[in-house]
Amino acid sequence: MSRHTAAIVGSSGYTGGELLRLLLSHSGIDVVAVTSRKRAKRPVARIHPNLRDITRLKFIDPVDLPEVDVLFLALPHGAAMENIHEYMSRSKLVIDLSSDFRLNDSSSYVTYYGQKHPDPDLLEQFVYGLPELHRETIREARLIAIPGCTATGAILPIKPIVEALRVNLIVVDAKVGSSAAGAGVNMSTHHPERSGVVRSYKPSGHRHLAEMQQELNSNGSISFNFSPHAVEMVRGIQSTIHIFLEDDYEEKEIWQIYLQAYREEPFVRLVKERGGIYRFPEPKMVMGTNLCEIGFEKDEKTGRLVIMSAIDNLMKGAAGQAVQCMNLALGFEETEGLNVVGYHPV
Amino acid sequence: MSRHTAAIVGSSGYTGGELLRLLLSHSGIDVVAVTSRKRAKRPVARIHPNLRDITRLKFIDPVDLPEVDVLFLALPHGAAMENIHEYMSRSKLVIDLSSDFRLNDSSSYVTYYGQKHPDPDLLEQFVYGLPELHRETIREARLIAIPGCTATGAILPIKPIVEALRVNLIVVDAKVGSSAAGAGVNMSTHHPERSGVVRSYKPSGHRHLAEMQQELNSNGSISFNFSPHAVEMVRGIQSTIHIFLEDDYEEKEIWQIYLQAYREEPFVRLVKERGGIYRFPEPKMVMGTNLCEIGFEKDEKTGRLVIMSAIDNLMKGAAGQAVQCMNLALGFEETEGLNVVGYHPV
Amino acid sequence: MSRHTAAIVGSSGYTGGELLRLLLSHSGIDVVAVTSRKRAKRPVARIHPNLRDITRLKFIDPVDLPEVDVLFLALPHGAAMENIHEYMSRSKLVIDLSSDFRLNDSSSYVTYYGQKHPDPDLLEQFVYGLPELHRETIREARLIAIPGCTATGAILPIKPIVEALRVNLIVVDAKVGSSAAGAGVNMSTHHPERSGVVRSYKPSGHRHLAEMQQELNSNGSISFNFSPHAVEMVRGIQSTIHIFLEDDYEEKEIWQIYLQAYREEPFVRLVKERGGIYRFPEPKMVMGTNLCEIGFEKDEKTGRLVIMSAIDNLMKGAAGQAVQCMNLALGFEETEGLNVVGYHPV
Amino acid sequence: MSRHTAAIVGSSGYTGGELLRLLLSHSGIDVVAVTSRKRAKRPVARIHPNLRDITRLKFIDPVDLPEVDVLFLALPHGAAMENIHEYMSRSKLVIDLSSDFRLNDSSSYVTYYGQKHPDPDLLEQFVYGLPELHRETIREARLIAIPGCTATGAILPIKPIVEALRVNLIVVDAKVGSSAAGAGVNMSTHHPERSGVVRSYKPSGHRHLAEMQQELNSNGSISFNFSPHAVEMVRGIQSTIHIFLEDDYEEKEIWQIYLQAYREEPFVRLVKERGGIYRFPEPKMVMGTNLCEIGFEKDEKTGRLVIMSAIDNLMKGAAGQAVQCMNLALGFEETEGLNVVGYHPV
Repeated sequence: MSRHTAAIVGSSGYTGGELLRLLLSHSGIDVVAVTSRKRAKRPVARIHPNLRDITRLKFIDPVDLPEVDVLFLALPHGAAMENIHEYMSRSKLVIDLSSDFRLNDSSSYVTYYGQKHPDPDLLEQFVYGLPELHRETIREARLIAIPGCTATGAILPIKPIVEALRVNLIVVDAKVGSSAAGAGVNMSTHHPERSGVVRSYKPSGHRHLAEMQQELNSNGSISFNFSPHAVEMVRGIQSTIHIFLEDDYEEKEIWQIYLQAYREEPFVRLVKERGGIYRFPEPKMVMGTNLCEIGFEKDEKTGRLVIMSAIDNLMKGAAGQAVQCMNLALGFEETEGLNVVGYHPV
Repeated sequence: MSRHTAAIVGSSGYTGGELLRLLLSHSGIDVVAVTSRKRAKRPVARIHPNLRDITRLKFIDPVDLPEVDVLFLALPHGAAMENIHEYMSRSKLVIDLSSDFRLNDSSSYVTYYGQKHPDPDLLEQFVYGLPELHRETIREARLIAIPGCTATGAILPIKPIVEALRVNLIVVDAKVGSSAAGAGVNMSTHHPERSGVVRSYKPSGHRHLAEMQQELNSNGSISFNFSPHAVEMVRGIQSTIHIFLEDDYEEKEIWQIYLQAYREEPFVRLVKERGGIYRFPEPKMVMGTNLCEIGFEKDEKTGRLVIMSAIDNLMKGAAGQAVQCMNLALGFEETEGLNVVGYHPV
Repeated sequence: MSRHTAAIVGSSGYTGGELLRLLLSHSGIDVVAVTSRKRAKRPVARIHPNLRDITRLKFIDPVDLPEVDVLFLALPHGAAMENIHEYMSRSKLVIDLSSDFRLNDSSSYVTYYGQKHPDPDLLEQFVYGLPELHRETIREARLIAIPGCTATGAILPIKPIVEALRVNLIVVDAKVGSSAAGAGVNMSTHHPERSGVVRSYKPSGHRHLAEMQQELNSNGSISFNFSPHAVEMVRGIQSTIHIFLEDDYEEKEIWQIYLQAYREEPFVRLVKERGGIYRFPEPKMVMGTNLCEIGFEKDEKTGRLVIMSAIDNLMKGAAGQAVQCMNLALGFEETEGLNVVGYHPV
Repeated sequence: MSRHTAAIVGSSGYTGGELLRLLLSHSGIDVVAVTSRKRAKRPVARIHPNLRDITRLKFIDPVDLPEVDVLFLALPHGAAMENIHEYMSRSKLVIDLSSDFRLNDSSSYVTYYGQKHPDPDLLEQFVYGLPELHRETIREARLIAIPGCTATGAILPIKPIVEALRVNLIVVDAKVGSSAAGAGVNMSTHHPERSGVVRSYKPSGHRHLAEMQQELNSNGSISFNFSPHAVEMVRGIQSTIHIFLEDDYEEKEIWQIYLQAYREEPFVRLVKERGGIYRFPEPKMVMGTNLCEIGFEKDEKTGRLVIMSAIDNLMKGAAGQAVQCMNLALGFEETEGLNVVGYHPV
């Protein structure tokens, strides 16, 4: 296997740290630089203590960023778009984990992010990095925007349904772990306040809705609704997706639709057990993996289709997906470095 | 204040224990007997260690149940209906916390509970013990059926809306603490399996749906959907209720509807803050109280009305509500024994 | 009962908020002012949402502090000592919840807090506010310093033993909830980092050790050791205290020592069950109460005496203890406002 | 690499499931049978849902156990000793994860387990499977007894100290996750009762103490004390070890002792950071790994040596250690199948 060099900009955060963990175990990648403005010169293991004795890398200042084969940007929203041309000058393959280049339509940044995009022409050059939907484009891409975590947890289970059936109305009710809010401290993540909550923090108008609309409802024909909740969990997103269809259907049709869509997908796991306590997707069972679990049930009384999905927000919801995209774009086996099995119990 | 005697049948469970805690602090009640077939003769504080040094009561066998002024039944589903006439012979006021007499229509027991009700004629004599909806009837009642916990968390926030506005479709997505499953051990509540889950355990067809339909949708004109989830929490139910209305509306109309319905209610707390991290209802903030918090937001993009509610499943969802009903039926101040303030942080 | 006015300085923190909750329910106290420099003019319920609909109080700036009958100081370490004379001018009874006046010996501030005390003469005027040890002095006191939370959890169980028996060596191994670290945000209390930890954060040299030494080992004859750990819990401190005695003893002697010391104490609960899962003290069972649970066992192999204690750090470890002291100093019933029963399950 | 066949007896429990996970990813092992009397013929993924899509193995009845190259016994205490000769007839290498053959001295079974060992002659043939202490013997062993989880967490950090220095007294205060109690349900692991506890469940006389004595204090010269506590955590054991030495010492001596003992050990990680929130061992940072983290501090006031250790009870505390022993006994690379990096945050 040919080897490639990689660097991570903004690697002191949670998605940056997770990327580093994955790349250090990847058989074809040499991590040559990880940046952090605030922590330059300090060992990464001080911030990511899981990497003690695993790496002696130290953070460098972003100005010292070398040229690499693949450059990951793991910065807060708005920071990648500011310096994107500089980053593009360092690498032929740039993978951005922020929201800065996910939307094709620059007007959506005004609507959902409240600001004009500074570089709208670049938007169409970026590929939305969801391999199950855009695998072939990702293989050829040089600029990739990794989807938002709650967007991934919604788009993967919904896409085959909207493709196959006529959908009227969708409600996505998501439950989200605390690591999804990042490593920045504030009162909402202060342990005594965050512990044990079921907190509706953005009942409507969440930014990730823009991505969901783009990938699932581009003509706007569906009433598309999304409400995320913070719950007691560090890693993980569980989404219950309530779908109302135009026509009647049977459960086995849904099963066929999913089998056809995802039977060959290495990172989608269809779950529908007759018994036991894990009959439906569960974030604990995918923790640390790049899997998206999908399950469903028909509500016999109202006809509603109830779909459940589960991902690890730092893996399939961020860093794992980024490595999957990199594998495609650099010609590695798609699953390279991502073949971990989840834990039980955990 | 005149004093009354009380007994609890099935007091080794969680709702029975909570009832006992409340009644022991009630200024007008003398608890004279608590029964448990399996634990007869043992001190209640061995099972409910919060009551150490608070009471020297011991469980007695149910056959030794004395006559009392008010009798609470805190038994598993199906057990109260078996012996209801015997219980009625011991007390002029019987308050049942199980599901055995909540439904007016005996056919609903077949549909939702899969069995014929053995005593259908009694159903119309039981009052559905939700004071905010049936206060005057409860005052006169001699037989009261306390609502299910997830039913209370849904009916209170939804009732004023369906009364005032034309509703097409409702999705109730509830998040439930582990104490709601009771004190019986099994794999689904084994700590390594239950800890940190977001588990969809009954995506459709949950039994409490029958009560919600009865109180909110008796003519069946609304597509009414309910999906509960087990989350990491011992006490508490948070419900996010997605409502789709026939007509357009403004947020302040909703506010007016709620104010009119609940302004004077001692146990409904309307929550809608402009800032801070507790802008919406949160189970942690009502833990140990008899409150139902209600908040809402209009989804400006789809018109959806998003309502959030929070209760403590053992209080407003069970024992607290039972004491509130007892207060009404025995002529006590409605809030007697229930005036606790919640904790922060917790 | 005569009524008294009270004010709290620094009431936006956790101990200040807990004090406010308790005082609002106290039958003889009118809270007339609560201060917060940063949050002046904002409703307290915004910061302490458990108090929604309970109080309309707003924070005021500390410069506007009125004269009151009792003044509570709930400030970070070092802030009370700076302005103590100003606070003393506002009230004849000042109760400080910080560590600023707990130690009799000013040199201990140098040793344990690394700084000279600015007002050493005041130290002997402050009474150490632990009623079980200093009840009569507290009744007469005008200046009271409330003990540290881990100090209370250690001193109460150890005091009767060191009084009655010859002790060689003590190891206190404490497990502490996150609220003990206060409302200030930082990385150590950021939910993803704090959740689920067992973190030894100060294996030796913890500041509360100074209080323990003062109250338990003033002549220094005992090797006294203390190590606290952060564990997953919001409220609560569990201490396991390993004591090595000079002479042999029997379990029933220890039982007699405790009965004699604490039989009449309203807030000490001796716990020693033969069976069940709550055979020893447990923080969950005292959550929200002012209780200190104490239990023990003799290690038959080594003779070690193993004592366990449990408190709620915000109650018996801070605000509850402060109210208990106030009750004594103002002539109220000692238990007034503190007669809450704990929850089960919780 | 030569391939070997393996089977697991008792694979529906937590250590058995963890073993299966590890062996399925091991490059030199083919798992040919997993037994469960109660669940025979059912897919293992029903019980261990992390293995969905990973394996199609079904449980078989133990009577159908084939001959294999290595046989793991993951049974409750007492079950392995009953049929050990039958198990020995199926495989030349038997690795037992229970306590049945850990102790060299049959009289210890009477003292600590309250029963006579049925097969005392076999005890000396079993090797205590702690590679850091007995590596060369394990390489030659055909019968291996894997240490108890809390024993591993105590022996590894203590052994180098008792070898190098004169020790008077040791107190091991351990904090243990719920998975250590196994997959059997009962009230002590029922979520509402187990969640958030700090529970001293065996203050003295714990069975694992027998192993600690055997490996660390065989001549009985040290006062050896052990108290485990259940805390809120699924996987993990943190031990704080308070050691009192005969002579004075300096921190750097301790550091040298550990470096000499463990510098080359692949699964011991010495932790002593100057700053940050992970200055000492932390179970979260070793979750899923086979690591034992060790750190320490000198108490300058009393001379006490405070040592902290952290392991994952299912990995280094059970299944991981068993695979490490198997690797040695079958001639694989010692770290094969165990090279996982921990997560952050988690």
